[in-house]
Amino acid sequence: MSDEVCKLVLDAIKQPDRTVYQKAAARLDMLAKPPGSLGKLEEIAARLCAITKSLSPSIEKRCIIILAADNGVAEEGVSSAPQEVTAIQTMNILNGVTGVGVLAKQFSSDLMVADIGINSDVSHPLLIQNKIRKSTGNIIKEQAMTREEAVDAFNAGFRLAKSAMEKGYQVIGVGEMGIGNTTTSSAVLCALLGLEDEDVSTVVGRGAGLDDAAYQNKIKVIKAALKLHKPNGNDPIDVLCKVGGLDLAAMTGVYTGLAYYGLPVVIDGFISVVAALCAIRLNPLAKEYMFASHHSFERGYTLAVNEIGLSPCLSLDMRLGEGSGCPVMFGIMDSALAVLKNMATFGEAKISDGYLENIREIGEKAF
Amino acid sequence: MSDEVCKLVLDAIKQPDRTVYQKAAARLDMLAKPPGSLGKLEEIAARLCAITKSLSPSIEKRCIIILAADNGVAEEGVSSAPQEVTAIQTMNILNGVTGVGVLAKQFSSDLMVADIGINSDVSHPLLIQNKIRKSTGNIIKEQAMTREEAVDAFNAGFRLAKSAMEKGYQVIGVGEMGIGNTTTSSAVLCALLGLEDEDVSTVVGRGAGLDDAAYQNKIKVIKAALKLHKPNGNDPIDVLCKVGGLDLAAMTGVYTGLAYYGLPVVIDGFISVVAALCAIRLNPLAKEYMFASHHSFERGYTLAVNEIGLSPCLSLDMRLGEGSGCPVMFGIMDSALAVLKNMATFGEAKISDGYLENIREIGEKAF
Repeated sequence: MSDEVCKLVLDAIKQPDRTVYQKAAARLDMLAKPPGSLGKLEEIAARLCAITKSLSPSIEKRCIIILAADNGVAEEGVSSAPQEVTAIQTMNILNGVTGVGVLAKQFSSDLMVADIGINSDVSHPLLIQNKIRKSTGNIIKEQAMTREEAVDAFNAGFRLAKSAMEKGYQVIGVGEMGIGNTTTSSAVLCALLGLEDEDVSTVVGRGAGLDDAAYQNKIKVIKAALKLHKPNGNDPIDVLCKVGGLDLAAMTGVYTGLAYYGLPVVIDGFISVVAALCAIRLNPLAKEYMFASHHSFERGYTLAVNEIGLSPCLSLDMRLGEGSGCPVMFGIMDSALAVLKNMATFGEAKISDGYLENIREIGEKAF
Repeated sequence: MSDEVCKLVLDAIKQPDRTVYQKAAARLDMLAKPPGSLGKLEEIAARLCAITKSLSPSIEKRCIIILAADNGVAEEGVSSAPQEVTAIQTMNILNGVTGVGVLAKQFSSDLMVADIGINSDVSHPLLIQNKIRKSTGNIIKEQAMTREEAVDAFNAGFRLAKSAMEKGYQVIGVGEMGIGNTTTSSAVLCALLGLEDEDVSTVVGRGAGLDDAAYQNKIKVIKAALKLHKPNGNDPIDVLCKVGGLDLAAMTGVYTGLAYYGLPVVIDGFISVVAALCAIRLNPLAKEYMFASHHSFERGYTLAVNEIGLSPCLSLDMRLGEGSGCPVMFGIMDSALAVLKNMATFGEAKISDGYLENIREIGEKAF
């Protein structure tokens, strides 16, 4: 879609249903427990109701959309793994033997894996072909991509969201595979938050495992890229095309699309949360459809999730990417809906034991 | 058991198998991911291997042991709910309609509910009768119980652990139901940590939901009880009988028993973590069998879990008790074992696509 259509789509994103939210919250307050004592489980349940406009939402059919792309900046030695690993690990993801595959199976989730810019010709019967170009440019020498390419990647992500909706998925996670993408994500986050010079290091982490020298080099590279391109922090597409990645641009499109189609979406780790922030900068209402899964070990995650204003449910020190935190979060969301659907309210508790006839009265007094 | 037998039992608790731990850790390092990138999931998997002395542990058969007891201090107005709620909510737990029941079902867990000191005559076909006495004494006027009663409660908990082992349970959560037990738990924690006067307020929270005046009163009550009884912080049984509760004493016995029988055990929230600390003070090796589930919203939780040196996996702002965080943690432990059992190592990845024949070589170079 063009920039104009894009604007129409963004303007069409709606607030989830407040009335349904309030009805769900009222029911949760009537359950046989002190009000609010199930914490985020209650909040998640009420939000899912509001998003789905139902007091009995289903999230049984679920998938994780994974965007795979290479980053030109990998040639600067900012990653512990060589660029070929993007293609290899994408195949492994498709074959279900990586972290996200195993965890997705555990929580009954499908995967949708798209090639948005892997730096080689790859094929797999399950791989969605969405390659915009082979790898981005090296951001310390040139823009990652043209603005048109960034919009194309965004659109491809948007279409993946549409496809997920058409396939009947009820909740979707957003993950990625791309060597070098903690570097591009850090650069994008700095641009969005207006961080320069010394502040840059506060968002840069060690990715999959850099030693001290490589980590210092990574910071230097990000600073240099920001100085060279001066991305406009008020224009996420400008930021994405100058110092971002095809994965980030497409993920931004996925989040935007899911908000547009009114589907709940789960953020994974650092790259995923930076793309989520890009989508929110395009339209703040996108946030209303997002759920933060786990607190990534990668340093910049905290800054990004705080900026968004969500609070993750899992503290697992994970830093794998691939969307691997999303399926575990699906399990938490299942728990939230189980509480909503299966706990008795004081009124509903039809307990036959005579001893408990006064439960409702005392219970209502108590809590 | 007598104090002497108790000492023999405590001395018999063994360290989990370090060799199995190292083998599991070595396998986890060989999986197709940057080493350590699955964070706590890897640590949990390796610890479960060490505890069960197996590289392929099963935790499918699981239960939550819930201790129900009343606390004399409830008459001081330290709780938002009246004492009758202990009995009522225990029945609701047994009927599966409370938070823990719904979440236990979600994660295929059974419940074992024992009356260790409810202040009335209660019966239910599923209720384990272990009443030591009806309620404890009001700790600002008298000891909670005699030392003998505390040891009896501890022994009852130990027998519940034995029973769980005999029934074939492979992982066990520890929860409670008892109006007033955040007050007793706070007092016990203060005694174990040597906190007095102004420091007392740092461990005291608002329980199920106290207003400001009631909260200040709760702090005053705890300070008064500590001043009156001067519990010996180096003797957990002394602390438990003077300012604790029957639930706490029995839970301490459950933790101790599970460590003795070599079974993994999941800590729930504040009361559960204070009992865990009591067990660790009796024998530090008990810690090796414990897993922290969620970071309770109750204020003192952080202090207690830091003192133990465990880090919870879930940040759900829960403050319900009942063991409600344990089943959700069972889901995390399932994920950890799925990673260990189902992810491919580079060596095992028998990928037929010719393109990927070099995966092992490049993969090993990469990570």
